[in-house]
Amino acid sequence: MGVGVIVVTGIPGVGKTTVMKRAAEGMDIEFVTFGTVMSDIAIKTNLVKDRDEMRKLSLEQQRTLQIKTAEKVGKMKNVIVDTHCTVKTPKGYMPGLPEWVLKKLNPTAIVIVEADPKEIFNRRAKDATRNRDPDTVEKIAEHQMMNRAAAMAYATLTGATVKIVFNHDNALDEAVKEASPVLQ
Amino acid sequence: MGVGVIVVTGIPGVGKTTVMKRAAEGMDIEFVTFGTVMSDIAIKTNLVKDRDEMRKLSLEQQRTLQIKTAEKVGKMKNVIVDTHCTVKTPKGYMPGLPEWVLKKLNPTAIVIVEADPKEIFNRRAKDATRNRDPDTVEKIAEHQMMNRAAAMAYATLTGATVKIVFNHDNALDEAVKEASPVLQ
Amino acid sequence: MGVGVIVVTGIPGVGKTTVMKRAAEGMDIEFVTFGTVMSDIAIKTNLVKDRDEMRKLSLEQQRTLQIKTAEKVGKMKNVIVDTHCTVKTPKGYMPGLPEWVLKKLNPTAIVIVEADPKEIFNRRAKDATRNRDPDTVEKIAEHQMMNRAAAMAYATLTGATVKIVFNHDNALDEAVKEASPVLQ
Repeated sequence: MGVGVIVVTGIPGVGKTTVMKRAAEGMDIEFVTFGTVMSDIAIKTNLVKDRDEMRKLSLEQQRTLQIKTAEKVGKMKNVIVDTHCTVKTPKGYMPGLPEWVLKKLNPTAIVIVEADPKEIFNRRAKDATRNRDPDTVEKIAEHQMMNRAAAMAYATLTGATVKIVFNHDNALDEAVKEASPVLQ
Repeated sequence: MGVGVIVVTGIPGVGKTTVMKRAAEGMDIEFVTFGTVMSDIAIKTNLVKDRDEMRKLSLEQQRTLQIKTAEKVGKMKNVIVDTHCTVKTPKGYMPGLPEWVLKKLNPTAIVIVEADPKEIFNRRAKDATRNRDPDTVEKIAEHQMMNRAAAMAYATLTGATVKIVFNHDNALDEAVKEASPVLQ
Repeated sequence: MGVGVIVVTGIPGVGKTTVMKRAAEGMDIEFVTFGTVMSDIAIKTNLVKDRDEMRKLSLEQQRTLQIKTAEKVGKMKNVIVDTHCTVKTPKGYMPGLPEWVLKKLNPTAIVIVEADPKEIFNRRAKDATRNRDPDTVEKIAEHQMMNRAAAMAYATLTGATVKIVFNHDNALDEAVKEASPVLQ
């Protein structure tokens, strides 16, 4: 049985993994990261030697890998998949779940973990590993808005529900409580 | 001939049915509720005994029923269909018109009836039949925003236009006037 | 080689063509307008005598023409296509790139040129060729929001990135700089 394939998304600094791991605590659900499954397949099939080589793949090779990954994860049927709704790149917002991925992954629910843009800005500022050209509060709000639009397009193609979960500062319990119904 | 299949949506308390019935007054257009057509089919085919049993159907059975309903309504070709852009559930916003429904329904226009979130909040508060755990004004705004995103995804798959009609307090005539071009 | 098919969109008065022509200056990229290619095909195939007759075509004829146009432009593979994310009509927002167009066009990136709704309002007010029933600032904001939602649906079906470029008053250089990575 199981809950099906639950996709969890959220922009960097929002704490999506923390929220979903806590919400799934004690439950018999697998937890995978889409990107990790993808690079594992690439290494196993000798496409690349390590994760750093992933970006050298052609667009065509990447799509093939995405499909293989989605097929593998889609078959798990009782799994939380950590991935991106959209990835911010210099060329714009890249959809994390384009149609060819969705049709194999068949998610039952898409969770978007959000926080106030200012909270995310401050969390990123405290993280020394982040780059020196930070997004403004306005750009963070824009990214979250585009993710909502993307998620509804994903839902249209799959029938998945879209759950917005707020992970405000010092309110992890509240976030976990909001996320819980998705796992039932 | 006719106007094709016009979908009318709007969150609870917004008055979508009132607006569209008034806009279609005196016109030769059928008016159906998607959910009613669906449960009628389920009863007629002995899947359920009454509407209350609809929620016991499996996801697979529900999809099959949705498709049959969309096929039936899609053939009417001169009809206003009352339904939901998204349904708010504990698992998140569920798309009312997923791809498999859209491809059979083939709507020519999707009307979203909206009001200010505060207006909707107050209308719901006055309605004694509503539940005791009301959405906040912020959550009402979020629901309306997600509906807009969903509607544009529906439009992308069908070519339907998306018409936003405001049904403000004491301004039904204005709303009817805004909705009218869709029926021409 | 080339950059693929780059779609540039933006509501009337935003200056999308200016921004993209400047960003592509000196580069070996074709620049076409979707609507012009479409009416050229219609005239060449004797469907219409001139552009004014385009609006007399049936919905079915228009779709066939859209597909032919998308096929032609999609094959260019190193081209900027000027078109609309959504077109505002009395029946609502009409998607400029419905699924049947997207699947032939296969864009690699969709650029949305935006400005503050007030800036757009003022630019339109100064333009004597515009109609006498102007959109309010709120309606301009609504149109831009619907375009973002549409663009993410387009991206979901194609994998294209969605780049938002702000073309504020007296800041064309900034806009061109934002748009440039899409052309690399």
